[in-house]
Amino acid sequence: MKKELKIGIVGATGAVGQELLRLLLRREFPFSELRLLASARSAGKEVTEGGRTWTIREAAPEAFAGLDVAIFSAGASVSRELAPAVVERGCVVIDNSSAFRMDAGVPLVIPEINGKEAFNHKGIIANPNCSTAIALMGLFPLHRQFGLKRVIASTYQAVSGSGAEAIAELDAQVRAYVEGKESKPEVYPYPIAFNLLPHVDAFTDSGYTKEELKLLYESRKIMNLPTLKASATCVRVPVFRAHSIAITAQFEHVVDLDQAKKAIRLFPGCDLMDDPEKLSYPMPLDFAGKINCGVGRMRVDFALDNALSFWVVGDQLWKGAALNALQIAELLAERDAEN
Amino acid sequence: MKKELKIGIVGATGAVGQELLRLLLRREFPFSELRLLASARSAGKEVTEGGRTWTIREAAPEAFAGLDVAIFSAGASVSRELAPAVVERGCVVIDNSSAFRMDAGVPLVIPEINGKEAFNHKGIIANPNCSTAIALMGLFPLHRQFGLKRVIASTYQAVSGSGAEAIAELDAQVRAYVEGKESKPEVYPYPIAFNLLPHVDAFTDSGYTKEELKLLYESRKIMNLPTLKASATCVRVPVFRAHSIAITAQFEHVVDLDQAKKAIRLFPGCDLMDDPEKLSYPMPLDFAGKINCGVGRMRVDFALDNALSFWVVGDQLWKGAALNALQIAELLAERDAEN
Repeated sequence: MKKELKIGIVGATGAVGQELLRLLLRREFPFSELRLLASARSAGKEVTEGGRTWTIREAAPEAFAGLDVAIFSAGASVSRELAPAVVERGCVVIDNSSAFRMDAGVPLVIPEINGKEAFNHKGIIANPNCSTAIALMGLFPLHRQFGLKRVIASTYQAVSGSGAEAIAELDAQVRAYVEGKESKPEVYPYPIAFNLLPHVDAFTDSGYTKEELKLLYESRKIMNLPTLKASATCVRVPVFRAHSIAITAQFEHVVDLDQAKKAIRLFPGCDLMDDPEKLSYPMPLDFAGKINCGVGRMRVDFALDNALSFWVVGDQLWKGAALNALQIAELLAERDAEN
Repeated sequence: MKKELKIGIVGATGAVGQELLRLLLRREFPFSELRLLASARSAGKEVTEGGRTWTIREAAPEAFAGLDVAIFSAGASVSRELAPAVVERGCVVIDNSSAFRMDAGVPLVIPEINGKEAFNHKGIIANPNCSTAIALMGLFPLHRQFGLKRVIASTYQAVSGSGAEAIAELDAQVRAYVEGKESKPEVYPYPIAFNLLPHVDAFTDSGYTKEELKLLYESRKIMNLPTLKASATCVRVPVFRAHSIAITAQFEHVVDLDQAKKAIRLFPGCDLMDDPEKLSYPMPLDFAGKINCGVGRMRVDFALDNALSFWVVGDQLWKGAALNALQIAELLAERDAEN
């Protein structure tokens, strides 16, 4: 039996916050109290889900009094500003932003991969970047089998990763196209409908974007592989909510395709969808609203020795954000119940 | 002065054939006669372009009598069946299909890269696969500078690569979405609107698709690099007509980013668009209807030694098909004029 927790959702009106609420009810998370928090602008608004209604409270430090856990999905600056005061009040913060992910004292957790790390927290547990979380769901089981050395990844990232406004922007641009009108981009610097932007998050001096570097640094931390080499190209695509990633991974040991497929099939949270003859491969339309990530197109790579290439797809709002954060909260609830 | 040629277009009613006609007029190709040919089904139809009208003739062997050059864009089986008889009649075939590309006696030509090869033909000159042509516009200038060894590529391929019906299918699916209706896929096995298909051309036993292997084998032939290693993941995306490719390339020699950018900038047919601070990078919407391919996001790669990562975009119907074929015909016209 799980302990019932008092839990808060910060950023409850955002795309990830809304999915958190849905998943929390759907997965019957053991809570005795659920507080929805957001900016002052949203305070007082009502949110209804599963036949119940909550009134949004402003996410000020005193609003967290008495909570056991709060899941933050309101961006890095809100997390940076608010989380320390919340932790001081005895509430554990599970943070979905990039604010604390690389901090030495903050565990960065994907429950299927390094769930135990969640218990080494000093008040804050970080939830990984969406592309990284989805990529590692395919990479980690293969790492365990063959010893990961090097990763080259190209992402195909849905607009959900930029929030509810971006989802609305793709929708508006497509409607404008059908009506023969123009719809100016606001969230993105250029149109996203029928287009691709090789640009996710800010550029760094290395020529890589921050998003691309997250795949390198977060992967090293989560898998405890400090010398892992990784290079990513992150691209925004006109898809609503699941991310896809083409990965070439090189290993220490000789790879075997059957073993690799078996490792994926047996890994919790992964669906192996890999039957080219039956045209079976994961696609974002099929993995929007799925708990598991899909892995397919597995093959021995022709460019690198001891390497595999494959294709992994996962719901950006779920395993890439809300679901993973909630799974971390579930770990805490289980542990509390055991004690 | 160029010699005026008698030229034919086979597949004149298709997406590539239509672009060929447009480009031929726009680039003032020196022809004294232009015959449009297609299947018996299209024979008798009229085609108007640039204020002139042509009547489609059936692409039977006798319809090629007296022609100097015919550009075929009607699929591999038409090419295989018809080209030998056309060559016998003294007409040079520039073939846009995969039928003869890997044949030892058939040059496979990108004019900016191996234009001289065009003159070693025995009646047939092959035009490369669209993704390969666009990828090599970025890869070849870097190869000349640093010596190419290894390529890992992920493609983002527009629906134009599957012909006019696929363009109509994406359009229909998007209209259905806006109207809240369903639109069944016919060209593709799954919906393409708001989706990605990690599946271009047929699967082979290696787990790679034929499209993915073309990038390996055609690159080797065009660049005369028989030991080149290459691995591609080819993905169809909901974009109308320009292909994009994320490439990581490893070289024999130490790479220098400034030299690499200069090599791209000086290469005919390439636009360097690489200024992250000004959010300047190539996108498919900007390269539809462009003669040149765009290269950007250039950076020293973090995963492999002596490697660069970059992003290249080109019009699939133009540099990926009609334009490259026409450029080959232009080489022949110039050479004939010199003799």
